[in-house]
Amino acid sequence: MAEFETGFPSVRQIQRCVADKQGVEIKLLTGDIFLGTVLWQDPQCLCLADANGEQILLWRQAIAYHKAVTA
Amino acid sequence: MAEFETGFPSVRQIQRCVADKQGVEIKLLTGDIFLGTVLWQDPQCLCLADANGEQILLWRQAIAYHKAVTA
Amino acid sequence: MAEFETGFPSVRQIQRCVADKQGVEIKLLTGDIFLGTVLWQDPQCLCLADANGEQILLWRQAIAYHKAVTA
Amino acid sequence: MAEFETGFPSVRQIQRCVADKQGVEIKLLTGDIFLGTVLWQDPQCLCLADANGEQILLWRQAIAYHKAVTA
Amino acid sequence: MAEFETGFPSVRQIQRCVADKQGVEIKLLTGDIFLGTVLWQDPQCLCLADANGEQILLWRQAIAYHKAVTA
Amino acid sequence: MAEFETGFPSVRQIQRCVADKQGVEIKLLTGDIFLGTVLWQDPQCLCLADANGEQILLWRQAIAYHKAVTA
Repeated sequence: MAEFETGFPSVRQIQRCVADKQGVEIKLLTGDIFLGTVLWQDPQCLCLADANGEQILLWRQAIAYHKAVTA
Repeated sequence: MAEFETGFPSVRQIQRCVADKQGVEIKLLTGDIFLGTVLWQDPQCLCLADANGEQILLWRQAIAYHKAVTA
Repeated sequence: MAEFETGFPSVRQIQRCVADKQGVEIKLLTGDIFLGTVLWQDPQCLCLADANGEQILLWRQAIAYHKAVTA
Repeated sequence: MAEFETGFPSVRQIQRCVADKQGVEIKLLTGDIFLGTVLWQDPQCLCLADANGEQILLWRQAIAYHKAVTA
Repeated sequence: MAEFETGFPSVRQIQRCVADKQGVEIKLLTGDIFLGTVLWQDPQCLCLADANGEQILLWRQAIAYHKAVTA
Repeated sequence: MAEFETGFPSVRQIQRCVADKQGVEIKLLTGDIFLGTVLWQDPQCLCLADANGEQILLWRQAIAYHKAVTA
């Protein structure tokens, strides 16, 4: 799995998405695609809230890509 | 695979699901989706009990996402 | 892959299955499902014997879940 | 997942792609193929910009191959 | 991926297959199944020879299971 | 993923393929099969050149098997 350190540019970029409530699209290795805003991240998961405020914990080990999206 | 430390927010969040008998949905990389309550977790597995009380050990390395669900 | 220590509850739970000759069902990331009894485990594999006594070594890195089953 | 050190030839090769704005094709384990230029890399991700300048963060753990392509 | 130490029972079991020229069946995460005899193993691969003596290096990280087979 | 050390027999075997310009077939976990000659390897990738001299970097984490082939 991906290493995780708070200093990594990609970790900081996600942290800015949290601060800015930036919409993101995240695809997992299962093929599932999720849209929402990242509430927090830790070395195991990203916590995503969808348009209805429902939270889901996406496991880092399963993430294929993520990108910012406009609402 | 995901790192595991009891201090991680996502590990503590699962621990609260255990304490609260909170229903969860967990999807594996195989595509299987499980509903139940988490009885305990360790660095290798989550032990889930379904509606009939049957227990299954889901291996962390295979987890794609989890989320709380209402019964 | 999953970490492995003999003190983990999930490792001890498998060890009890070995001692009790408890039937188990194990699913791999390939989608294959195996039924049998666990003869031994080590940090790389679980050795499973099926109803005919044939042995197969399932690699931990490929395990999605396992659970006890009644014969 | 792949180890990451800035001294690895394959990491330096990607770094030259960044410097040269070299077009690349990257395939993920999901089967998705992306075309674009790499803006930066870190131990967790490669940041790719497509022809429209849209950025996507491809997670290293999910990369199957990459190669240079001519525009 | 699986840890590798020469003292592991599953590694020693493979080593006995090498010594005994025991036929084995190995399935990979790709779904491919290989039959042959293991010529040697190291922490990265198992070297398998098929019935025609052709050699193939199966990467440990991709192995789902292996078992002895009778010729 | 597979550990990598230059002293591993499987790593040295690839190194001989480089020296001998030995044709190889490499299959990835995506199911893609590549034919060519290995130009170099590092802990992250194998650099393969196909019949037209086009280079592709195959990520070790995605390799299922490799074998020598005759041209």
